[in-house]
Amino acid sequence: MADRLIVIGGDAAGMSAAASARRRDPELEILAFERGPHTSYSACGIPYFVGGLFDDADRLISRTPVEFREAGIDVRTRHEVIAIDLGGRTVTVRDLDRGSESDEGFDQLVYATGAIAVPPPVPGVEVCEPVRTVDEARRFRTRLEASGARHAVVIGSGYVGLEMAEALVLRGLDVVLVDQSEQVMGSLDPEIAAHVQDAAEGVGIRVLLSTALEEVRHHADGSARSVLTSEGELPADHVVVATGVKPATGLAEAAGLTLGERRAVRVDDRQRCPGLEGIFAAGDCVESWHRVLERPVNIQLGTHANKQGRIAGVNATGGDAAFPGVIGTAASKICRYEVARTGISEREAREAGIDVVCATIEDRTRAGYYPGSGPIWVKLVAEAGSGRLLGGQIVGVEGAAKRIDVLAVAVWTGVAVGDLELFDLSYAPPFSGVYDPLLTAARQTTKAVRDG
Amino acid sequence: MADRLIVIGGDAAGMSAAASARRRDPELEILAFERGPHTSYSACGIPYFVGGLFDDADRLISRTPVEFREAGIDVRTRHEVIAIDLGGRTVTVRDLDRGSESDEGFDQLVYATGAIAVPPPVPGVEVCEPVRTVDEARRFRTRLEASGARHAVVIGSGYVGLEMAEALVLRGLDVVLVDQSEQVMGSLDPEIAAHVQDAAEGVGIRVLLSTALEEVRHHADGSARSVLTSEGELPADHVVVATGVKPATGLAEAAGLTLGERRAVRVDDRQRCPGLEGIFAAGDCVESWHRVLERPVNIQLGTHANKQGRIAGVNATGGDAAFPGVIGTAASKICRYEVARTGISEREAREAGIDVVCATIEDRTRAGYYPGSGPIWVKLVAEAGSGRLLGGQIVGVEGAAKRIDVLAVAVWTGVAVGDLELFDLSYAPPFSGVYDPLLTAARQTTKAVRDG
Repeated sequence: MADRLIVIGGDAAGMSAAASARRRDPELEILAFERGPHTSYSACGIPYFVGGLFDDADRLISRTPVEFREAGIDVRTRHEVIAIDLGGRTVTVRDLDRGSESDEGFDQLVYATGAIAVPPPVPGVEVCEPVRTVDEARRFRTRLEASGARHAVVIGSGYVGLEMAEALVLRGLDVVLVDQSEQVMGSLDPEIAAHVQDAAEGVGIRVLLSTALEEVRHHADGSARSVLTSEGELPADHVVVATGVKPATGLAEAAGLTLGERRAVRVDDRQRCPGLEGIFAAGDCVESWHRVLERPVNIQLGTHANKQGRIAGVNATGGDAAFPGVIGTAASKICRYEVARTGISEREAREAGIDVVCATIEDRTRAGYYPGSGPIWVKLVAEAGSGRLLGGQIVGVEGAAKRIDVLAVAVWTGVAVGDLELFDLSYAPPFSGVYDPLLTAARQTTKAVRDG
Repeated sequence: MADRLIVIGGDAAGMSAAASARRRDPELEILAFERGPHTSYSACGIPYFVGGLFDDADRLISRTPVEFREAGIDVRTRHEVIAIDLGGRTVTVRDLDRGSESDEGFDQLVYATGAIAVPPPVPGVEVCEPVRTVDEARRFRTRLEASGARHAVVIGSGYVGLEMAEALVLRGLDVVLVDQSEQVMGSLDPEIAAHVQDAAEGVGIRVLLSTALEEVRHHADGSARSVLTSEGELPADHVVVATGVKPATGLAEAAGLTLGERRAVRVDDRQRCPGLEGIFAAGDCVESWHRVLERPVNIQLGTHANKQGRIAGVNATGGDAAFPGVIGTAASKICRYEVARTGISEREAREAGIDVVCATIEDRTRAGYYPGSGPIWVKLVAEAGSGRLLGGQIVGVEGAAKRIDVLAVAVWTGVAVGDLELFDLSYAPPFSGVYDPLLTAARQTTKAVRDG
């Protein structure tokens, strides 16, 4: 009889695992359980749907349960796995629509439960409308369009908070972005984050930093009324909470899977749960190895989830694939600027006790005479002494963000800034000046390294 | 007494050399001779000026003779060096305005004469209006705007020919692009070049391939009348010849500088002319080391000229800087597509006897639901067996071309496609699907390598 693979979680990691297992082993029985009604949707795309950049929320779904079933993967949506018996090799599943429970046996298991929101612990937050799933986004947008709302408050100034703030501005609302931190986007160094803040303020978002959230107040019908902060009360017809997420590990912990130092599921580079034969985990719920920091991290990103899921699927079907780790690459578009980072920031270097030298340059995205040329700032972080590139941050107009991948490959392969300075990067007036901003940044950083 | 550096050629390489020498040695006397009236102009920008994307031709000039003089560099425009006496360490200079000649002594010499056009050897071509310098571009544009011209023919379908053809379309002309080759852009493999041809034809350019030029006919006043080809006679009020250039080495050869196998000035990695103390060369007139082909090449590109010039200037002033070579990176925007290449093409690999495996993918530049998403094609060339990335070609809508730099770093550092597939490249819906097209291309190429 063929083996049976059970996948817990029907989003990027889980369904990538199921799909790669399916491709590799036509005999394998594959069962995937997903608590929600959808599979494999792009949470990253939700702010653009809310903002009205496109109208059909179904486009967020890259592959439906029906499509997976047609491909031979038995996906059961609205089914929540509530317990894992590692010894007995069964999971207990609750059918959320019928309320019934059943046990299902497995030979291999992929744990891919994703992440859950971590709202700030203040009164009234729990009543705020969530906007994390396709259906929540659809409902939120319908309410936005129906209401005569004027004021919105977004709590949290990370990528998602900023993207949602922009979406609400596009919807014609007055938007206040509140964060207790001293800067937006804590993953960036302050001088780069300042440009992102400029971009947000440039479209009218009011950015309130160093501001503590104290309470979210609601009308009797449950709709938002105002947000109470350390800087006063803000009227709010809509409140979006985007203060971050944490790995969904409750089920894993109860079953006896090991959590790592970042409180995410510990896996080896084959996505195996150490010491547990045939048990894999992947995606937002696991730890990944950070190649620059040389320690585990927990990063919620679809790109890692897809790769890790695929690798788990390969290894669950007798293959041998390794996930090589991450270097913290991320990108976003915030109003008129694109922003991206890779490797480690100056702050992360300091916190990790790594001695670095940095330089930041301002340049143009195109030749000065070419239409559409605009500002770009590049910050490089290099190891003191060796000049090895350890990280980069970029902010600027169109054409800025994807340059981060050039730095990502350089960080990944251990290039020194003094070498990068002379690399054969492309030049044409529509794309850069004769020295690409990255080369200019490498040159300035090389000088800084040399000057100690 | 301070040393005296003479620079022959006042464009990118020569003036980069002069500028870096000036920065390093405030005492040095620096004399730069330029045959034309301008210094350091962007030849790459000329098609955009001709096309009317900007109106002030002076913007093509990155630094004027006056600015150089203010920086302590004695630039003499309209001065042509007509002989070099290496033994006597003098050059003979002709003042083109006065017609006088004089000898000037030097301690160090930087030879940076650039390249000269190679028109096809058919009758009438020599009468065609050149569009290589700022003044020629200005005159050409004035004639374009003044005339009631309807027809233009561009000879040569490389980057410059295509860019000029597009510029003439923007000016409202019917444009025919003629090339004797079977494809446009011979530096690309045919299946990638086909997309570039599509883009050109998409704006109405008629592309005549496998077509031999036989004669350019002119009116009695010297203005163009028609172009005679193997496919018939084409009416032509304007004819632009863009069939390539060759290194300007006449003066070097006469002086006894050594030319290499590509008939360009031979230099070592310090930009020194071997065996000649204090004699340097840089830019379009020299050979550069191709790191993938592992042989010298001659590539005319401002980015190399700038770097090599700077390095010549450093070494001419007692420093020690090395030019690490090139990998054939280039980019351009052709109508609605951007196009770029790095490393070697499949054809170059075949010609060099390198056993390679290739894959080409079609993808989207952004997430499917994000506005402005469009096609992108990526071709990767990997060494058979090892899978080491040896080259890449990209064509697609906005956001396509600059991705080539990611591949350039990967080629430069010797990354295998099987590793590249799992690199931590950025993901956000405005910039790519969850798998960047480069990762997808790497994956397909990895499979091709594995399947042999």
